[in-house]
Amino acid sequence: MFQDTINKIRPLQKQWFEKAQQRLDNLTKPIRSLGRLEEFAARLVAIKEDASPILDKKAIFTFAGDHGVTDEGVSAFPKEVTQQMVFNFLRGGAGINVLARHAGAEVVVVDVGVAHEFEKAEGLLNFKVVHGTKNFTLGPAMTRDEALKCINAGIEIAKGYARKGCKIFGTGEMGIGNTTPSSAITAVITGRPVAEVTGRGTGIDDDAHTNKVRVIEKGIEVNKPSAADALDVLAKVGGAEIGGIAGLILGAASLRIPVVVDGFISTAGALIAYELKPECAEYMFAAHSSVEPGHKVMLEKIGLKPILDLNMRLGEGTGAAVAMMVIEAGLKIYREMATFGEAGVASGN
Amino acid sequence: MFQDTINKIRPLQKQWFEKAQQRLDNLTKPIRSLGRLEEFAARLVAIKEDASPILDKKAIFTFAGDHGVTDEGVSAFPKEVTQQMVFNFLRGGAGINVLARHAGAEVVVVDVGVAHEFEKAEGLLNFKVVHGTKNFTLGPAMTRDEALKCINAGIEIAKGYARKGCKIFGTGEMGIGNTTPSSAITAVITGRPVAEVTGRGTGIDDDAHTNKVRVIEKGIEVNKPSAADALDVLAKVGGAEIGGIAGLILGAASLRIPVVVDGFISTAGALIAYELKPECAEYMFAAHSSVEPGHKVMLEKIGLKPILDLNMRLGEGTGAAVAMMVIEAGLKIYREMATFGEAGVASGN
Repeated sequence: MFQDTINKIRPLQKQWFEKAQQRLDNLTKPIRSLGRLEEFAARLVAIKEDASPILDKKAIFTFAGDHGVTDEGVSAFPKEVTQQMVFNFLRGGAGINVLARHAGAEVVVVDVGVAHEFEKAEGLLNFKVVHGTKNFTLGPAMTRDEALKCINAGIEIAKGYARKGCKIFGTGEMGIGNTTPSSAITAVITGRPVAEVTGRGTGIDDDAHTNKVRVIEKGIEVNKPSAADALDVLAKVGGAEIGGIAGLILGAASLRIPVVVDGFISTAGALIAYELKPECAEYMFAAHSSVEPGHKVMLEKIGLKPILDLNMRLGEGTGAAVAMMVIEAGLKIYREMATFGEAGVASGN
Repeated sequence: MFQDTINKIRPLQKQWFEKAQQRLDNLTKPIRSLGRLEEFAARLVAIKEDASPILDKKAIFTFAGDHGVTDEGVSAFPKEVTQQMVFNFLRGGAGINVLARHAGAEVVVVDVGVAHEFEKAEGLLNFKVVHGTKNFTLGPAMTRDEALKCINAGIEIAKGYARKGCKIFGTGEMGIGNTTPSSAITAVITGRPVAEVTGRGTGIDDDAHTNKVRVIEKGIEVNKPSAADALDVLAKVGGAEIGGIAGLILGAASLRIPVVVDGFISTAGALIAYELKPECAEYMFAAHSSVEPGHKVMLEKIGLKPILDLNMRLGEGTGAAVAMMVIEAGLKIYREMATFGEAGVASGN
C-alpha cells in the first residue's frame, strides 16, 4: 500500500493554475488584489484538476499517541493527559472541537499509539500500532515495521475519508511529550543543532528545557538515525501520531486531496512525508506559524509559507481549523464573485 | 451628537481582562497556548463588560465616496467604477459580499459621497454629504462642516445598528482614488514623508506613482492641514467615506461595540477617530496588514497589531470579513471549551 501510494503522487499541472488565475483576473477587483486568497483558490483548482471545486465536506484528523521519552521529564503535563484529552475530544470540549465546529469540519480522533485501551466510541478510530513508543534515550522509539504501520494507518484513513466524499483534510495530534520527537526529527533531517530547534512545548521552564535538549541529543546519539532515510528517523526518534500524519498526507496527495497541516508536530509528520515523496508538498497548506522554534526550519525545508501567525501552540489541529476557513474564503471568492462583464464594471487601464 | 459621542468613550477596565483570562487559563489547554485567539476573547469581554458575550449579529459597513483628485490621474480605474461597484455590492457579486456571507455578516453599503444619485435600494443607506469631494490640489476636498457631517453619518449608523442588536461591526470602503487621501492623511498626521507612505493603490505604474506622490505633496502644500486638528485634515485632504468610517468607529466605541478595521483606507478613518479620541483604539481590531506602505505607519501610531497578513489590497471590508471569523474563533474558544475540572483532565505542573 505504501509504495503504491507514493507512486500515485503527481506534481501539480501549471495549466490548472493558469486556468484558475484567468478567472481570478476577470473578477470585479484589481488584479491579484486578494493576494494569498487567490493563491489558495488557484492551488485548490490545480489539486482537484477541477475548474470549480467545492469544499463541502471537511475533516480534521487528530492522531493520538504516547511517548516513552516522557520518562525523562520533557513535558509540563503528566502522560495520562493524552488519554484524558482523547475523552475530552470525544465529548466535544477541547479546542479542536470548538474550532472545527466553527470551520464546519468533522473531528476524527485516531488512536495510533496511546498507552490506554479505549472502548469503541463514535468519532474514534482504532488504528493502534503501539501502546506508547519506547523511551528513545534507551533505544529506538519504534521498530521500522511499526513506523511503516503508522504511515499505512494514515494512508488507509485518507482513502476511507476520500470514499466518504471528504474534500479537504486537516491534520492534528495529541500526545504528551510529542514536541520532543518533533524536535528530534527536525534536527536529524535538517541538520540543525538540537538546541536551535527545541522549544518549550506546553510550557516548561529553563531547567526542563536544558534537560529536553540533552534528552534529544542523547536519543540521536544512541539511535543514530539516518537523515537520508525518513522511515528510519520516524522509527528511531519519532512517534506514532507523527507517522499517522505523514501517512494521511501521502494518502491525501495520492488522491488529490488538499491537506491543511497544523503546527509544529504536524509539520514533523509533513516533513517525513516530504522526505518520502517531495511532490506531496504541493498538496499541503501550512496552517500557521507555531511558537516552537523548529517549526520555521521545517516549513522552509518543505517550502511552505504559513497562512496565520497568531502565537498559537496548542496543536490538536486547532491551527488547521482556523486556516481552513481562510482557505475556503479564497475558494469562495473564486467561485462566487462576479466578473467585470457580469457586473457591468469597467476594468482597470 | 459628535461631542456627546466622544465624551461617552471610556477606556477598558483591567478587571474584565483579568476575569476573562481566569476562565481562559482554566480551559483544557496549556496556559495561553491559543495565543492571540485568547487576547481577542479577553478584549471582547472587556469591551462588552459581559463575562459571556456573543457575536450573533455582525455587519460590515462599506462606505462609498468619490474623489475630485482623480482628475489628477492618481488611479488605475476610471471614477465611474465607484458607482458601478455600488451596484455590484447591491447585487451581491463583489468580494465583500462573498466574504461577508462566509463570515455570517450583513453587508451595508453607505453612500456618503458618491458622484451619482442612487435610487432607494435594499442594503444601501443614503447619507450623502457630497457628490464626490473636490480636487484637493486646488483647495480643500471638503468644508469642515461637510467633514463633520460625514463623521456624524457614521455615528448615526453605529447607533442604528446597535439598536438593531448588532454585536460587532466591520469597516470597509469603495472610492476610486481613495488611497490618495489616505496617504495624505497618513503623511500629515504621522509627519512621515509622502513618498514613504504612498503606494500603488489598485495597481498604477512607476510614472503614475511618481505623479501620485507629487499630487499629494501639492494637496498638502495648497491646503496646509493642521496635524493637530484631525477634522481639518479630514476636510482638506481626506474623503467622505474616510469620515464615515471615523464616525462609525467613534459611535461603536461610545456604545461598547467592537469594530474590525479593514485595510489602508479604513485605517485612515481609524486614525482620524484615534486623533479625536485616543481611547477608541481599544475598541478596534486591525483586520490585516495591507500591501500599502502607509498602513503599517498608521497601525503603529494607533497601537494596533494586524490579525492577518495575506497580501490583500482590495478594501471594501474584505479583510475585516476574514478577520471577523478569526476573532469569533477566539470568542468561541472562551465560551465553548471545557475546563480542566469539567473534562477530568490533569492540569500542568
